[in-house]
Amino acid sequence: MLKTRLDLARIQAARQAIDPLFLDSPLYPCVGLGTELGCAMSLKLETVNPVHSFKARGTEIIASRLSASGLSAVVCASAGNLGQALAWSGRGRGIDVTVVASRSAPAVKLERIRALGADLVLVDGDYDVACERAAAISRERGVPRVEDSVDLGTCDGAATIGVELAAAAGRFDAVLVALGTGALASGVGYAVKSLAPGTEVICVQPQGAPAMTRSWHARSVLTTESVDTIADGVAGRVPNPDALADLLVVADDAVLVEEASIKRGMRLLLDHAGLVVEPSAALGVAAVLEDRDRFAGRSVATVVCGGNVDMEAYLGWVGVGPVPLVTGAAVSG
Amino acid sequence: MLKTRLDLARIQAARQAIDPLFLDSPLYPCVGLGTELGCAMSLKLETVNPVHSFKARGTEIIASRLSASGLSAVVCASAGNLGQALAWSGRGRGIDVTVVASRSAPAVKLERIRALGADLVLVDGDYDVACERAAAISRERGVPRVEDSVDLGTCDGAATIGVELAAAAGRFDAVLVALGTGALASGVGYAVKSLAPGTEVICVQPQGAPAMTRSWHARSVLTTESVDTIADGVAGRVPNPDALADLLVVADDAVLVEEASIKRGMRLLLDHAGLVVEPSAALGVAAVLEDRDRFAGRSVATVVCGGNVDMEAYLGWVGVGPVPLVTGAAVSG
Repeated sequence: MLKTRLDLARIQAARQAIDPLFLDSPLYPCVGLGTELGCAMSLKLETVNPVHSFKARGTEIIASRLSASGLSAVVCASAGNLGQALAWSGRGRGIDVTVVASRSAPAVKLERIRALGADLVLVDGDYDVACERAAAISRERGVPRVEDSVDLGTCDGAATIGVELAAAAGRFDAVLVALGTGALASGVGYAVKSLAPGTEVICVQPQGAPAMTRSWHARSVLTTESVDTIADGVAGRVPNPDALADLLVVADDAVLVEEASIKRGMRLLLDHAGLVVEPSAALGVAAVLEDRDRFAGRSVATVVCGGNVDMEAYLGWVGVGPVPLVTGAAVSG
Repeated sequence: MLKTRLDLARIQAARQAIDPLFLDSPLYPCVGLGTELGCAMSLKLETVNPVHSFKARGTEIIASRLSASGLSAVVCASAGNLGQALAWSGRGRGIDVTVVASRSAPAVKLERIRALGADLVLVDGDYDVACERAAAISRERGVPRVEDSVDLGTCDGAATIGVELAAAAGRFDAVLVALGTGALASGVGYAVKSLAPGTEVICVQPQGAPAMTRSWHARSVLTTESVDTIADGVAGRVPNPDALADLLVVADDAVLVEEASIKRGMRLLLDHAGLVVEPSAALGVAAVLEDRDRFAGRSVATVVCGGNVDMEAYLGWVGVGPVPLVTGAAVSG
């Protein structure tokens, strides 16, 4: 029995609150990617649902709970994906959703939050500044606030991914999961370690946003002054102590990767899986790239956690383009 | 009992000859795409294997048979994907593979054929010119020739996709399949109509390469003078009469789609599934776009048959770019 805020029975029950279209996401081996990386690599694809990230698993639980309590408004800070997901889940239940995000979040994320009918409040500054503003709005308006990794619904939602990974035929030697606030990593980690304790759970964060990883190694909360990474979905400075405590129980390791590896990971996912993903979704591949020996010959799964990316930026990162003026297949002789 | 060249017991047996990494490809609903199209749309993803197309299902069967016969050389004409797949299957069995392709085939396909160790012969002209040259090489060298839709291994391989579609939980009202030489369509169609006769099998071909579709409607072989489509994988002028005969038994319909619909289909697969696919793989989506009423509210599956596409051309087709000189997320205010 792992001592965390999470609970397997509660997670299984919470699954019932999630629209099935967000559950049982594709999980498949990508042999070409594995060959490139020197291990057997499977992808858990959280990007083919209507919000293109795993976040709706959590917001479905939360919005369902709000709805049952007769609440009709909610606010959250978001790097972009939580806001989209909460907007989706709120819309279907008549809940007014306010999302606070950084003005510098990817345009596609901000556009989709608006398109889903949420009230979008933009702040100058990063994700943690947005968190402060969301807290203020919550107090001023007296509406509940959804906080990633603090609100247990966000962790329980993520944990349903871990349940699915643990139920997969064959056993994974390791599961690689993006680390930001810790909701995804602690949720997936808790479920995997509870149901398949032999599987290693490894969290991956960018060198440019290392607060939670450093905290995990120090076993106490460490913050950073700033963040500098293309992986906008995991770019936090201020870890939550409860999320860290859970992560200390369920994660076997937390590693940092360089920006170049994230970009290379995105490119490999394009070349071998035909997938366009956001930087955070390539962290697992980046971790293998930086430590091939550790994963050599092993069976590894990674959660492709989000696909919301500005294409212009994406193409620059993966090194495709520029687009020629005349379209048509190139000629090889 | 459908009277064709295909046979269910033979297909099931042939499955054993196929490297499992090409079997049981991902099949999943893409709700966002379905919402856009007004139907429930599932994708059968044939693009995550090492040759990024369904063709290796067939070449595994063929190469296995050649190997058992002690043959050590083979030639094929290819639009690009069959050649890659045969190169892959031959390499693992010590078979020398010669691929004849059009000089104007996508560069990525030609490069990958070479990278897999095949001898690549380029011809001026289209796929049917390559077929003539492959036939000549076969005669001159006395080596067997693999001919798409004529060699039953190519149809049996494709049929294994149909077996998997028919075995899926729930029943599809319709399966949309790209139509070129007819191997994919007749193979998938035969298996689906044998195992799930209530499922409609609809073949989709570009207006710019309509020979097989016109032949199907005329119930006799009609050829065209030329082809003009971005869907290089299905751009044939000269249907094979045996393939047509099979298709007349197993297909419920054959439709033609415009180039703009193919491009739009590729864009929708990018936006909703995060997938970069080649034009032929978007034919099914294109067919729904051109006849929404026919598919409204129905459960539809389409085979995403190939992902080998030159990125520069692709980006032009889907309308992304140009890439800015300075990379980084765009700012929205």
